[in-house]
Amino acid sequence: MLVEGMLAGERAALARLMTLVENRSPAVRAIMSRLHPHLGHAQVIGITGPPGAGKSTLVDRLVARLRREGHRVGVVAVDPSSPFSGGAVLGDRIRMQQHCLDGGVFIRSLSTRGSHGGVPRATRDVVRLLDAFGMHTVVIETVGVGQTELDVMRLADTIVVVLVPEAGDAVQVMKAGLLEIADIFVVNKADREGAARMVMELQQMLQLRPGSGWDIPVVAAQAAHDIGIGEILGAVARHRAASARTPRGLVGGAARRTAELADLLEETLSRRVREALAAAPSDLAAVVDAVQAGTLDPYTAATRILDDPATLARVLASPERNERQS
Amino acid sequence: MLVEGMLAGERAALARLMTLVENRSPAVRAIMSRLHPHLGHAQVIGITGPPGAGKSTLVDRLVARLRREGHRVGVVAVDPSSPFSGGAVLGDRIRMQQHCLDGGVFIRSLSTRGSHGGVPRATRDVVRLLDAFGMHTVVIETVGVGQTELDVMRLADTIVVVLVPEAGDAVQVMKAGLLEIADIFVVNKADREGAARMVMELQQMLQLRPGSGWDIPVVAAQAAHDIGIGEILGAVARHRAASARTPRGLVGGAARRTAELADLLEETLSRRVREALAAAPSDLAAVVDAVQAGTLDPYTAATRILDDPATLARVLASPERNERQS
Repeated sequence: MLVEGMLAGERAALARLMTLVENRSPAVRAIMSRLHPHLGHAQVIGITGPPGAGKSTLVDRLVARLRREGHRVGVVAVDPSSPFSGGAVLGDRIRMQQHCLDGGVFIRSLSTRGSHGGVPRATRDVVRLLDAFGMHTVVIETVGVGQTELDVMRLADTIVVVLVPEAGDAVQVMKAGLLEIADIFVVNKADREGAARMVMELQQMLQLRPGSGWDIPVVAAQAAHDIGIGEILGAVARHRAASARTPRGLVGGAARRTAELADLLEETLSRRVREALAAAPSDLAAVVDAVQAGTLDPYTAATRILDDPATLARVLASPERNERQS
Repeated sequence: MLVEGMLAGERAALARLMTLVENRSPAVRAIMSRLHPHLGHAQVIGITGPPGAGKSTLVDRLVARLRREGHRVGVVAVDPSSPFSGGAVLGDRIRMQQHCLDGGVFIRSLSTRGSHGGVPRATRDVVRLLDAFGMHTVVIETVGVGQTELDVMRLADTIVVVLVPEAGDAVQVMKAGLLEIADIFVVNKADREGAARMVMELQQMLQLRPGSGWDIPVVAAQAAHDIGIGEILGAVARHRAASARTPRGLVGGAARRTAELADLLEETLSRRVREALAAAPSDLAAVVDAVQAGTLDPYTAATRILDDPATLARVLASPERNERQS
């Protein structure tokens, strides 16, 4: 029902599907199976860079420009949140109010959920929902530049790395792994001191790279003053044209699809493991109790469970009630 | 053999065990089971903050100071590396050469490995190896401030967040989730403009936090000039005394140990899944082929495997040869 509603253009259905996907509901696989024939139309642009680079403002301006050109645009803002409180910064959720009443824009903030890989998985599925919903462009914005953010960026067809003159020297860019993922560099807040030097440093570093058929441009911008936005979108369009024959992003090749199958299996098996340990059925109870009491270390306990096929099978038996619903 | 050698103080054995652990060898569980009785002595200090904050220099100075006080010190530098090349920045591996000939120091760089959660797992086990090896203090340093880095920081007894005046305003600190994990703030490069204002801003933000029995100090430092190092170590010692009764870091309580058991099960199951898909035995081959050819979407394929207990059991059967060796 929700999927049909979403495909028919209902924003409320889209929002509810996003919540299911963000919470990694057991229904995700069934939902995404039904979406699959509708995928592969949106262009996905990733925007990343260190905190304070002005990415939020830049995304605002890109969205406004794309809207003026008639594009329907989805925005996924990936927020880190505290591992302790689970809360996300509210600022991003409300910052793009100017677009809120515009039916051609859909904005979603994703905050970090507990388990490893939760954010890249949720981001992947939210982007696919926006694609199936009919968005021409989906912008993924990350707040930081850690491994999760790099994983998320792999979903994009074109990756824009945003820096500011204050971000430090070339070594810092390399340290954060940004040099190797960037398709386009933007030096934002280019009216600040050191901007010209940073553009030059980046260009010098890029000259040292082995040729790949795409010369990574360095665009100077002042997002707050709407300067450089057209140049960035022009560079994105050129990159898209140059890389049209190399599947990336949401589509990928055979290897990407196999990795995704593995990831989906892992995600469900992980959930079943955690549910089984929480419920601790009879044949697991003794092991779990000993680990909690500290009389058995987790490594030894894991080996006992993994080496006993009967116990393992019971741990991983499908809790049918939960997984079949959709 | 390696474990006995390491416990007897052999650095070469320690290094080889670290390589096994970093590569997530199937032997990890057996190794760590044998180490477990030797754990829980080292104090673990986490150092995090945005790229360019001078963390590497600060760690150098902390190590030098701790060595002068007679501490044996382990350092784990968690480097992000490109998801494409798999390479790590070499700078950090060679930067602490001054300590290399000092038998009381052991330095290890960990780079990001492919799978989700690989770095936090490797870091946890490397820190435990250093603990069992007899280090009094283990310093974990991260390069960035993403989710992986936050996960890694949870291993620490005391978390030091390093900022510089240029890092931007208070909102940026909150965005990166740093406010909620910090036990101690350091404003490094405190001779730069804006340092006093940043110290004040942080103190104001900290006053808004609910009381927790620990007043988070903000220390101004200039690591490059060896200024503030004693103050930081003093704050770490005070934090340790204040939090001695709240198990954290490597030890944790019952909930932490259960989560670790779940994590270890997940890690091995993920490996078995990936090995099974790569080998694609007879009853899996048709599904894997269809996914690779693009005629079956990964979500539907995952459901087919997960809903068939016999197939699932064969996917997850222990490849005894690989996992029993140690």
